[in-house]
Amino acid sequence: MNNEGERFRPIWIDHASDVVKVIDQRALPHEQIDMTLNSVEQVIFAIKDMVVRGAPLIGVTGAYGIFIALKNDKSNDNEAYIKNAAEKIINARPTAVNLSWGVNRMLTAVLSEQDPTRRIDIARRVAGEIAEEEVENSKNIGRHGVKLIEEIARKKPGQPVNILTHCNAGSLACIEYGTATAPIYAAREKGIDVHVWVDETRPLNQGARLTAWELGKYGVPHTVITDNAGGHLMQHNLVDMVIVGTDRSTYTGDVANKIGTYLKALAAKDNNIPFYVALPSSTFDWTIADGVADIPIEIRDPDEVRYIPGAPKSRDTLLVPENSPAANYAFDVTPARLVTAFITERGVCRACESDVKRLFPEKC
Amino acid sequence: MNNEGERFRPIWIDHASDVVKVIDQRALPHEQIDMTLNSVEQVIFAIKDMVVRGAPLIGVTGAYGIFIALKNDKSNDNEAYIKNAAEKIINARPTAVNLSWGVNRMLTAVLSEQDPTRRIDIARRVAGEIAEEEVENSKNIGRHGVKLIEEIARKKPGQPVNILTHCNAGSLACIEYGTATAPIYAAREKGIDVHVWVDETRPLNQGARLTAWELGKYGVPHTVITDNAGGHLMQHNLVDMVIVGTDRSTYTGDVANKIGTYLKALAAKDNNIPFYVALPSSTFDWTIADGVADIPIEIRDPDEVRYIPGAPKSRDTLLVPENSPAANYAFDVTPARLVTAFITERGVCRACESDVKRLFPEKC
Repeated sequence: MNNEGERFRPIWIDHASDVVKVIDQRALPHEQIDMTLNSVEQVIFAIKDMVVRGAPLIGVTGAYGIFIALKNDKSNDNEAYIKNAAEKIINARPTAVNLSWGVNRMLTAVLSEQDPTRRIDIARRVAGEIAEEEVENSKNIGRHGVKLIEEIARKKPGQPVNILTHCNAGSLACIEYGTATAPIYAAREKGIDVHVWVDETRPLNQGARLTAWELGKYGVPHTVITDNAGGHLMQHNLVDMVIVGTDRSTYTGDVANKIGTYLKALAAKDNNIPFYVALPSSTFDWTIADGVADIPIEIRDPDEVRYIPGAPKSRDTLLVPENSPAANYAFDVTPARLVTAFITERGVCRACESDVKRLFPEKC
Repeated sequence: MNNEGERFRPIWIDHASDVVKVIDQRALPHEQIDMTLNSVEQVIFAIKDMVVRGAPLIGVTGAYGIFIALKNDKSNDNEAYIKNAAEKIINARPTAVNLSWGVNRMLTAVLSEQDPTRRIDIARRVAGEIAEEEVENSKNIGRHGVKLIEEIARKKPGQPVNILTHCNAGSLACIEYGTATAPIYAAREKGIDVHVWVDETRPLNQGARLTAWELGKYGVPHTVITDNAGGHLMQHNLVDMVIVGTDRSTYTGDVANKIGTYLKALAAKDNNIPFYVALPSSTFDWTIADGVADIPIEIRDPDEVRYIPGAPKSRDTLLVPENSPAANYAFDVTPARLVTAFITERGVCRACESDVKRLFPEKC
């Protein structure tokens, strides 16, 4: 992993060897392993198998995938080859819109250059730019979002602000500051006392494995809870605000995020607790108006529900009777009416068409 | 286990040896192990450590605990001894009201006999009566509840009725038919096509381990899902009704049940799906009016969240970073406003004081 000890990145170019490396997030929190991505097939595997995950990171990985494709091109038709690679990468996972956004931006940049031999340098540069922009977006999300935390902190001096989050929308998902975690890290830098309730996030436990790991690394006080516990905590005034990330949000305010997010939004509403969604503009879908009806929800392998992966050198543990089937819907959609506000790189806005379009007029 | 192949019981007296036996539910679904309860300490251990669990079963186990205590009495003061044993058993777990209900009923029956040498026979008989009454209650809950399933089945001929349940309120929790499962088993006996969505129920996975196991044993089609998934299923018309059990419900309609129940009730309400709570009268608390404020919620060992028990002969798996703390609230309370109706042994009624008291006038 690069940048050990400071804000780390889950993807980077090793400049000496000019290869793309990622943290293999499947091995966390027990082992920290880097993986080199050498081919389009490896990029697709890394995205599908969740070596990398998190909407902005999937977008950046897809972008680097075009660079990797170009490095490997032995075809006679560079344009056809790269378009084919782009299509395969985009199809690796369906829900996070950042993937097609990142890949398509690369495609446009690369194909605007007529000389195929010069496309690889453009790809390296633009993929790097996309990564840097996401870092910048995250910082700005933190800058805007921290004001919401400060406001609560002022009302309860001497007590921590309790923030609940679901899944991982942190450094591991989004490069350096993360999205949902960006306001939290910014609050820590300002000396605000925060405590994070970390939803375990079954079935792949991104909360228990990844969010807990990175909060621990950055010294942020936190407590892991089951996905079942949030409602009870909210009923008993133990949650001041919810901040989550998103894999795709419509310009009308509907939010696709890790399965279970919708349940937390309902509980927040029922207990009058603000529910914020932190996202860079790359996560907006500008074409879909009805998120519940129209955002594609990935259905993954039922064995991700049926088994818990063993710790290093241990067997996987079967959780259910051998013959019991399982279903594994990976995301759900929280309707805009349950979202207090979006926290974007350009500021905080209500989760509705008029406010989103006011913040991003060039997208309409 | 007794009654193999038919409706089974999780607790019984072995008549040859006059000892109380239970299924050790910690070992399911991978192993079926019986445990003998020979002392009050073993009874308390079995309840605390969840060898037995489920409100009616805890009540029956507590009742048999008084019988076991009497068998072991070597004191000079039988009454003081038995009162002391009763108090210790009642304190084993705080939330399920059946425990104090069962133990206190035993105490009244046993102490009404002045001759201490005859108390043991009374205890054996009354504990058996309590168990038989819960069997009868379960059957009647099934008889009343099945009408609600039939009503839905009529509206979707040729398609299964999809029922979501949380935790285990089945044979393993409640003797033979269970509470939440009783209408489901009754539906199967009537040839109604049902399919059950089984919430995994973290952290102790009573759904994935126990409900899936007994539904499989009885041939009921089912699918295990994470606790996160129910909201998404409800948004997409994949759930026709929710039925859960309860550990303690107030006469005013508030429902304490396994942590996470409240989140499912919110999602059911948001999607206009009926949310039923099945319970015998032994699970009502006739003294508490505000369940959210006043039902005691057990807080269990955080390591139940941090680790997944290994399959037989495997190590436990640590789910979180070694230094990350966890919290383990065992129950939550669903306010009456989210409950469509109670299904009791005397019929179906709204979850409100007037209707509950109309059904159980002698309790007021």
